[in-house]
Parts: sequence; C-alpha cells; structure tokens
Amino acid sequence: MTAKTTSDTPATLRLRQVAIDTYRENVAYLHRDCPVYRAEGFQALSKIEISSNGRNIYAVLNVVDDEKLVGVEELGVSEQAFAQLNLPADTLMRVAHAEPPRSMDSVRRKMAGERLSMEEFRGITRDIATNRYSKMEMAAFLVATGQTGLDRDEVLYLTRAMTETGERLNWDEKLVADKHCIGGIPGNRTSMLVVPIVAAHGMLIPKTSSRAITSPAGTADTMEILANVELPVTALHDLVRQHRGCLAWGGNANLAPVDDILISVERPLGIDTQSQMVASILSKKLAAGSTHLLIDIPVGPTAKVRHMREALQLRKLFEFVGDRLGLHLQVMITDGREPVGRGIGPVLEARDVMQVLENHPDAPADLRQKALRLAGRVLEFDPDIRGGQGFAIARDILDSGRALEKMCAIIAGQGKQTTQFKLGTLNVEVNAERAGTVVGIDNYLLSRIARVAGAPMDRGAGVELLKKLGNPVAKGEPIYRVYAEFPADFAFARKLIAERGSGYTIGEADELSVSDLEF
Amino acid sequence: MTAKTTSDTPATLRLRQVAIDTYRENVAYLHRDCPVYRAEGFQALSKIEISSNGRNIYAVLNVVDDEKLVGVEELGVSEQAFAQLNLPADTLMRVAHAEPPRSMDSVRRKMAGERLSMEEFRGITRDIATNRYSKMEMAAFLVATGQTGLDRDEVLYLTRAMTETGERLNWDEKLVADKHCIGGIPGNRTSMLVVPIVAAHGMLIPKTSSRAITSPAGTADTMEILANVELPVTALHDLVRQHRGCLAWGGNANLAPVDDILISVERPLGIDTQSQMVASILSKKLAAGSTHLLIDIPVGPTAKVRHMREALQLRKLFEFVGDRLGLHLQVMITDGREPVGRGIGPVLEARDVMQVLENHPDAPADLRQKALRLAGRVLEFDPDIRGGQGFAIARDILDSGRALEKMCAIIAGQGKQTTQFKLGTLNVEVNAERAGTVVGIDNYLLSRIARVAGAPMDRGAGVELLKKLGNPVAKGEPIYRVYAEFPADFAFARKLIAERGSGYTIGEADELSVSDLEF
Repeated sequence: MTAKTTSDTPATLRLRQVAIDTYRENVAYLHRDCPVYRAEGFQALSKIEISSNGRNIYAVLNVVDDEKLVGVEELGVSEQAFAQLNLPADTLMRVAHAEPPRSMDSVRRKMAGERLSMEEFRGITRDIATNRYSKMEMAAFLVATGQTGLDRDEVLYLTRAMTETGERLNWDEKLVADKHCIGGIPGNRTSMLVVPIVAAHGMLIPKTSSRAITSPAGTADTMEILANVELPVTALHDLVRQHRGCLAWGGNANLAPVDDILISVERPLGIDTQSQMVASILSKKLAAGSTHLLIDIPVGPTAKVRHMREALQLRKLFEFVGDRLGLHLQVMITDGREPVGRGIGPVLEARDVMQVLENHPDAPADLRQKALRLAGRVLEFDPDIRGGQGFAIARDILDSGRALEKMCAIIAGQGKQTTQFKLGTLNVEVNAERAGTVVGIDNYLLSRIARVAGAPMDRGAGVELLKKLGNPVAKGEPIYRVYAEFPADFAFARKLIAERGSGYTIGEADELSVSDLEF
Repeated sequence: MTAKTTSDTPATLRLRQVAIDTYRENVAYLHRDCPVYRAEGFQALSKIEISSNGRNIYAVLNVVDDEKLVGVEELGVSEQAFAQLNLPADTLMRVAHAEPPRSMDSVRRKMAGERLSMEEFRGITRDIATNRYSKMEMAAFLVATGQTGLDRDEVLYLTRAMTETGERLNWDEKLVADKHCIGGIPGNRTSMLVVPIVAAHGMLIPKTSSRAITSPAGTADTMEILANVELPVTALHDLVRQHRGCLAWGGNANLAPVDDILISVERPLGIDTQSQMVASILSKKLAAGSTHLLIDIPVGPTAKVRHMREALQLRKLFEFVGDRLGLHLQVMITDGREPVGRGIGPVLEARDVMQVLENHPDAPADLRQKALRLAGRVLEFDPDIRGGQGFAIARDILDSGRALEKMCAIIAGQGKQTTQFKLGTLNVEVNAERAGTVVGIDNYLLSRIARVAGAPMDRGAGVELLKKLGNPVAKGEPIYRVYAEFPADFAFARKLIAERGSGYTIGEADELSVSDLEF
C-alpha cells in the first residue's frame, strides 16, 4: 500500500527470462536475498511494476530460494512478461510496488450497486488491457457487473470501451457482412456454408472465428481440417480482396483483446450473463470491421437460451447496442433443441459441411436448411435484394455448385491442408434402450462426450449422430457412434455414457415438442 | 472440463521441489514435452490435482521450457505445495484435471441473489481450506456475498463454517475473556493494557493477535518490541496457566485458517463488509477458545465506521451471531475521531503503553482512559463484580503497579527482547500552517504517512503526535514528528505530506465536533 513509484528506486536488477509459461499472467521472480526485495518490503504474490527507460509491465511476484533459478542481483520474468517487455537480457531494471489499479474504485462503486459512466468503463478496460488487473480483480469486476446487472447504456459503454482497447480492421467498403451464433449447439457449423454462399454472391464477408474453449469444436478448429487458418493480418486482407471472404482464426489480429482476457476468467467461473455476452460479441465484430451483422440465438431446453422470453430480451439488447454503435444488426431466433448436422468434432463436422457444399445425397438436411436461411438473411443486407428473396438466391448459389467453387478458392487461398485427417480408429455404437421416437437430445451431454473422447485436440474424435429428433428407433438400434484416438479417452467417454446415460430421450411421437421457430 | 479422475492416469512423474515461494497459492511445474502434459490436454493456469497413495493437493499449472528447471519425467511443485504434500522427492505422482470445486454451484446461486444453507457454507469453507478455490473463485465468493449481502442467519452459518475449518483451543475454564477492536484507528494499543489489568485480577485472557496487514502496527508487532510473540501452542498453554494471560501472535495455532485465506483476497480488493468482518472476527475468537468477548467499534469521520447508525447495525449483527454461538458478547462504541495515544509505529506505541503501565507523568491520558474503560467492562464479565464497578477496579490495578508487574511477568514468560529498539535516526517536525485549534485529524492519512516512513517493518519508524483534538496551536508550532530509518522512506513520507497535506485541520474551538460517545 506504499505509494513508491519507479523513480525512487535505482535500476539495479539484471533482466533474465525464466523459462516458465504462465499463460495470461505475468510473473516476476526475485531471490529472497535480493537487496531490493528486502528493502521494498515485498511479499510473494504482491503485484509489482517492472520498468526500464519508459517501458513498464505489471507482474505478480514469486520469491525464489535457489540462485540457480534467479541470482540475488537478477530479476527473473516469465516468458510472457519477457516478450511483453521486449528488452534484451541483462538490461538494468527497476521494480516497485504496483498501486492497485485506479479503476478498481469504479468496480467497488459497481459492487455497491451504482451506475458507471463511459469514462469509468474506459478506465477499467484500459487497466485490464495493460495487465494492471489481477485475476481476482477481474473476477470482482465480472461478478459485480453480472450480479446487480448492467443497464443497457452501460452495456453500450462497456462494448465501446472493449472495442477501443485493440486494433480495428478497416476493409474500405460500405458493406462488410458477418454472422455470429451465441453458441451452445454442437455441430452448428453454418459459418462454413454462409461464407462461401455470401462471398460467391460478391458480398464482403471476412469471417474471423475463435477456437473451441469449452465446446468440442469451433469454426476455426473445423476449418483447420481443410485449410490453414492462422494467417497474418496482411495476408488476410489480400485474400479477402481477391475472394470476398475468408474463414480464419481471429487470434492474430489483436481485436478487442480485453474480451479474450475477460473470457479467461468468465469460463472457469461459469459466468455467462447476457450483458457480458453482448459486449463480448459486439466488441469483437466492431473491431473486425463489420458493418452488417446477423446474430443467431438458438433456443431449446439444453441450449444457452432456454426460453423464448429470454431470447427476446437478448435480442432487444443486441439491437439496442448494435444500433447505437452504427451496426446494421439483425437477430434470428433459431431451433436449438438438438445438435445441428450429424457430426460433433472437427473431422466429423468438416465432413458434414463438405457434403452440403457438394450437394451429396447424404448431406444433413437440417444443416443445409439452417445455413440457407442464415445466408439468405445476410444476402438481404444487400440493398438490391428484395426482402424475402435471400433464401432462394442462397439456394441457387449452393445448388449450382458456386458455393463449393468459392469454398475451394478460399481453401486454396488460405493454404490447403496436406495432412490426411481421419476419424479416430477406436469407435463404438450406442444403442437405443427402448423402441419409440427420439423426443430429446441433450446438447450439453453430447458436447461433453465428444470432448471427453478427445475433440477438439484429437481431430478425428467426436460423436456421429445416427438418429435425430422425431426419428423412430427400434430397441437396440444404434443412435450414435463415438470415435476416439486414444484408449484412455475412449474408455472415459464410455464410462461417462454408462454413468450419465446416452443423452437421448426415447418416447412417443406425440411427446415431441413442436418448435414455433422459423426452422 | 473433462471429468478425468486420478484413477485413470498411472503415477509416472517423479516429485521434485522447485525452490519458488508462491505464498498462499500452490503452483505445479510440468515440462512442455512431458508426456502426461500432452496427453491430458492441460493448459497453463489450469487447476490440477496431484496425488499419490491417498495424499492429494490442488495446484495451478505453469509450463516449463527448460529441463534444468523441471525434467520431462518430473513434476515440479512450489515450496508450499511440497510442504503440504509432505512426501519425499522422487515419489511417483499422478496428475489430473481438477474439477471445479463443487461448492462453486452455491457461489453461483449466491450471485443470483439466493440464500445459502449451513451445509452450503460448510461446502464452501471446506473447499477453500483444501485449496480447491483459485483466487478468482474466492473473489467471486466475496463479491457475491458482499454485494447482495448475507442475511444475519447466513453470517451465523459462515462464522460457524469458518470456525470448523481449523483447530480450536480449549483452555478448560468457564470464563475465557478476550477483547477485539475492529481496527482503523492508529495507536490504538489498548490490548497491551487490558490484558495485564485483567490477568492481574485473575481472569483468564489468552490474547492472540495478528500482525499489521494494512496498518502501521498491529498488537503483535508492538508487543514484539518488548517480548517474543511467536510461541508454539504448548508453550502458550503453559504460560497462560501460570500468568492468566499472554500477548502472542496467533499465526502458529491454525485458528480458522479460511479467515486468513479470505483476508488475502479481501485486502487487495478493498472489500470490507460488515458481514465479512463479523464472520472473520467471531470465527477467530471462537477458535481461540474465548467464552466472553468485548468488541470495540470506534466511530469517526475517518474511522472504519463513520456514522452512529452504521455502528448500531454492526453491534446488532455482532450480538446476534455471538449469542447464537454461545459467546457472552458485549459491544462498546467508542470515539474514533483521532488516533489514540501519541505514537504510531511499533516503538512509539510500545513507549506509550509502557508509560501508562508505569504511571509516568507523560503517559497519554486518552490511551489510559480508553484502556481502563475497556478493562473495566471485561472485568464485569466476572459474576462477582457488580455492574459499573469494573472501571474502579481496573484503575486500582493500574495505579497500584500490579498491571505493570503482570506485564513484566508476561514479558519474561514469553521471552524478553534483548535487542535494543530505537527510534528512527531521521526525523522531521511538521508544523501548523495557521494558528487555532486542532479540530480534525485524518486517521487514514496519518497511518499512511507512518507506513510510508517504514512502519511496521522498520520498527523505529512512525509518527509522534504532539497535538491532539482540541489543543490550541500557534502558527508554525510543531504538530507531529515523523521518524524513519532509511533516506528513501524519509523522503517519500515528506513528499506524501507535501502532496496530501499534514492530515490536521486547524480551525476555531467551536468547530470541534462533540462526541456523544462514552469517551
């Protein structure tokens, strides 16, 4: 709590990289007998400021008792911290107590239920972006904003502040389209169909996606089966100019980096509020340079959004924030009662997508239908397309093979994968325990089975659905097949099914809930 | 998120201590090319479970890129984790993903504003005590319970659950007295007077205290000027049997350890709610074996409690929880408008205390008076003392020299300090900027000046008050003196005063707020 600043201590410690990867947390290592450590009254896990000639970073302090790790005249830093400092080893460094970030005062005001201003949200995101927040301070921010809730103006402020912390792509066009699903539905790989359809029409759709965090596959993981997805920003620009679209991983572009930092705390805490979802998605899309955005909100008993009233609230919030930020934003509320397509896991999902593009007779009809509806709505962002005509245009592009052609061009542009990707060598069928009709499929449990089996790390692992909602089944008939690469994962997936059940509910045809959604 | 348990991976990694002190957080180090790391799909900062033959701990994972630190067949653990495991180096260990602690479900219920049961609080404190919670999960718990608040039954449950996590001292007597101040007032060293007075009367008062966390001196820091305070639990018992009291540091006894863990998150976050204060204080006292407890709540514009209505709320909460836990609990609301006594910092405060015990003519009258009132109330826990007679008995004990005699016996029993403790060699007087009467002293700023000057680490550093509330001052007359040991600290304390002012408000005599408190 002392207010010492870097100007008070001389630069006396020689910088040294310690070969430890501490992920998104900077760690500094000082020897217990280091004179600066003793004089400053530091304590392990204090937050310290490390500086030299105007460069500074913040780090958590660990105390070292072995001179082989860090000498008494040295300042060790973890790999991430060393990269951020970007200074040569042996540079003389200063260390000082880091003051708690000033914007924590705003977080405490939020804890007390008060309303924060645009400037306060800017202060918070700036401090998070410069690593001034510890994980526990971020948790305090997330719980405080999640609990008393943010009003819609505050969600707008937070979105804007998050966008401002990183780079912003500029495509120099009037209409830059994108689509985004809020997640939670396995197999829902519509982007890989919407992008080639829309790009084939000539509309710009530079799609950047994330990898899976808690799901068995993200769009980036699945696309990586077919093409390289890690492109530098300049290559991405060239590619998009030439082909009007791409399907790349967004991690290289430093878009709304505060979003990634907050996600690394939200996920393990299981915090997932509407406010944070809207700010997270819209800040990323804005930073990616989108001007027109279609949001897909699936609703179902095991989807992220379980009731229509909740979906409508979320839609209003997306619309409010999107409008204020100058985005042309449309929301589609879709059927989230079961996985989309047949495959769950990178290779299985890539196969579904390619079958739809190739107009293969086995192509999953639900994936095709959903992708066409979404693509149709995106196409209608084009002022020259009459409302209601988008679907037919999208279908023509797909049926004529122009979408497949475009996909092949994008794959070639990004760099086609030469590795042969195969399904996991271990597989087992799971069978119906009774005869009847499939009336329920648990999205959450099937995702988990696919993850435990090894997806997305093991690309050929996952679940292949053989039956979908409404299908009749005989007793003992296979309902899905589990694939794995390694015996331990395989055994574990089977154990999970034995303990928790298959995730399928078999009943009578009239028990099947009727969806009042567009599809 | 996979549900792998320790039984699924063989014990293949050799245990090795890495000489890094990570304070209250267990850290494990795995080499990036370690086969287990790759197979399990770990990621840096994942929480993992480490086990061998029934012993297990939880740790945060760091990934190492240098075989000299940790080899590919080794499992490195930080010093704390190695001590907790208490297994020889080279023991074959298993590692597995740690499931998120189950009680986080209760924390999420609390985030949603729900009421938690006794069993749920037990689940939370058990998981915290066994290091299953990360710092961010603890932050989530603290913000969630601080914000929607706990009702008084929930505070009771939390207090009980915190008490159950550690050891409990048993003094085998019917009346075990204690006193505790909620803090925030510098120089408030009444315990060092109350204990010898009460013990001289024959009442058992085994006082264990903490060291300063954010203040310039705690009771343990000040007592350490005179005597050894770090006694093993058995020595403490012998001492208390013989002298009826002690003034020791409580850190050796493992009392309500969850309290210490939560404090390590509360402090840096600046979270200080009534619920958490009551649970923290009462769980510690209950674990220390107290049966009768006097709580001191100072009220003033720069105290922790700023308004009488707030003090009354807090009193009711202490009374409710104390009564339900079978404690005889009394609360005194006291004058917290200014520091108590003259000294702020270990040596200066020890001098104040000894002057009062010695009936020295320079002894600070306010410290003497406050200590006598508190001691009087503690003495009245004795059924043989008539209500209202405690003060006079306490004064007799002090004036007769019996309190000093008892203090000397306690000091001798704990082990008298042989080191000569002196005031800091650097000192400067701070002068009144105008003539008038002292009408305000900022507790917070004076504490901070003393800390910046080096207290409590540098024992002779601190602030000596020359004027108190109500004293007349001439322009340029010294109001206090700052002591420091080291030039950097000294310069920094002076800079703080130059920037923030002296902390004294000089005005007219009639501006002095009248305290309606007992003293």
